[in-house]
Amino acid sequence: MAYELYYWTGIQGRGEYIRLALEAAGAPYRDVAREDGDGVIARVSKEVATPSFAPPFLRDGDVVVGQVAAILLYLGDKLDLAPKASRQKLWTHQIQLTIADFVLEGHDVHHPIGAGEYYENQKPESQRRAREFREERVPKFLDWFEGILTRNPEGPAHLVGDRLSYADLSLFQVMDGLTYAFPKLMSGLGERYPSVRALCSAVAEHPKIGAYLASKRRLPGNEHDLFRHYPELDGRR
Amino acid sequence: MAYELYYWTGIQGRGEYIRLALEAAGAPYRDVAREDGDGVIARVSKEVATPSFAPPFLRDGDVVVGQVAAILLYLGDKLDLAPKASRQKLWTHQIQLTIADFVLEGHDVHHPIGAGEYYENQKPESQRRAREFREERVPKFLDWFEGILTRNPEGPAHLVGDRLSYADLSLFQVMDGLTYAFPKLMSGLGERYPSVRALCSAVAEHPKIGAYLASKRRLPGNEHDLFRHYPELDGRR
Repeated sequence: MAYELYYWTGIQGRGEYIRLALEAAGAPYRDVAREDGDGVIARVSKEVATPSFAPPFLRDGDVVVGQVAAILLYLGDKLDLAPKASRQKLWTHQIQLTIADFVLEGHDVHHPIGAGEYYENQKPESQRRAREFREERVPKFLDWFEGILTRNPEGPAHLVGDRLSYADLSLFQVMDGLTYAFPKLMSGLGERYPSVRALCSAVAEHPKIGAYLASKRRLPGNEHDLFRHYPELDGRR
Repeated sequence: MAYELYYWTGIQGRGEYIRLALEAAGAPYRDVAREDGDGVIARVSKEVATPSFAPPFLRDGDVVVGQVAAILLYLGDKLDLAPKASRQKLWTHQIQLTIADFVLEGHDVHHPIGAGEYYENQKPESQRRAREFREERVPKFLDWFEGILTRNPEGPAHLVGDRLSYADLSLFQVMDGLTYAFPKLMSGLGERYPSVRALCSAVAEHPKIGAYLASKRRLPGNEHDLFRHYPELDGRR
């Protein structure tokens, strides 16, 4: 039976971390709200025994699981996108949780005062927050990712072991979002993170991911998404 | 061998979610930085194969794991603080991840512009963010917790199944932090969340947790912690 992904239409958002895993594995899935409309998310949430606080959530027969990292923990086993050994599996999950933190900070740059107020009502605050994000947080996160890649005993091609995992796919997605939202910042980083960049290129060239990225299922970035391109937040060169 | 917890001294912080699990299980552990100073955190991070992006992290022999939710996923098995069945185990984890989101929002109330700037430099912004937190986010999270408690097929005494899990301990800790930081808000909620409140009272009365809370190991809340009592953020009654 096909997996069912429940996530808002119109953006990549947090649903994209799940899509990339499903696509990389060639798993059959239904992007339910894109077929049935956003209203299905609230309807299904009311019915299930384990409702997610927020989308995305995934239904696989009787199993309904929410929270990106928990969904990927589940799918990592099912789709063979994580190591089988418990210690490596936990490390993959730890990396994913750190990516989740990074994604949230990337969102909060344009909504420091809260998600309930329009960006237009928090522009000066966003510019202050963006400065710390660009100067402190992005380098700190990318230093960490570069560091764990170069320290991987199996080589820097993957975050964990010597095979593709959901963490690799998620790191690609964050870097793609950052490049969309902060093109000046990211081009200014130049060759500072060669292992991260090589990994992201390899993910983009993965046959199934490449086909997905070229398909209509992959939505372009936009200013309703987690990562938004507001030039005023990208800073001066 | 005793577990080793690495976390900043002086605050409960995110380390407290781990302490509560270790204490509830009566597990032997060393709170390393409290004995050896905060410098040990950076030193050990440099040595290990799986460095955490930030504290807390836990060492259990050869295993080093960071990220609160991942540490609890690991300890849940070891300390029998999570269901054994995979679906229930995943649900416990999903709840924990939602608690982690709530905790971060509770922190960001007093640091909307970024953790790198003093609260004193972001007070008006904090007051704006606090309003949304009090009026929208706290009720939304608490509605969800109350909802999953009342929908638990085993009864509302626990978040998952009919036994104490790390998620119960963590919900206690969030509620304790909120009550410290936002006493007016929380008392204003009155009896709106009876199942959440009953669970928190039961956790506080758990013999081992009760003994811990009365010990010197339990630090009082303070204004360096995640949850901070700034009366100006607690709003009018």
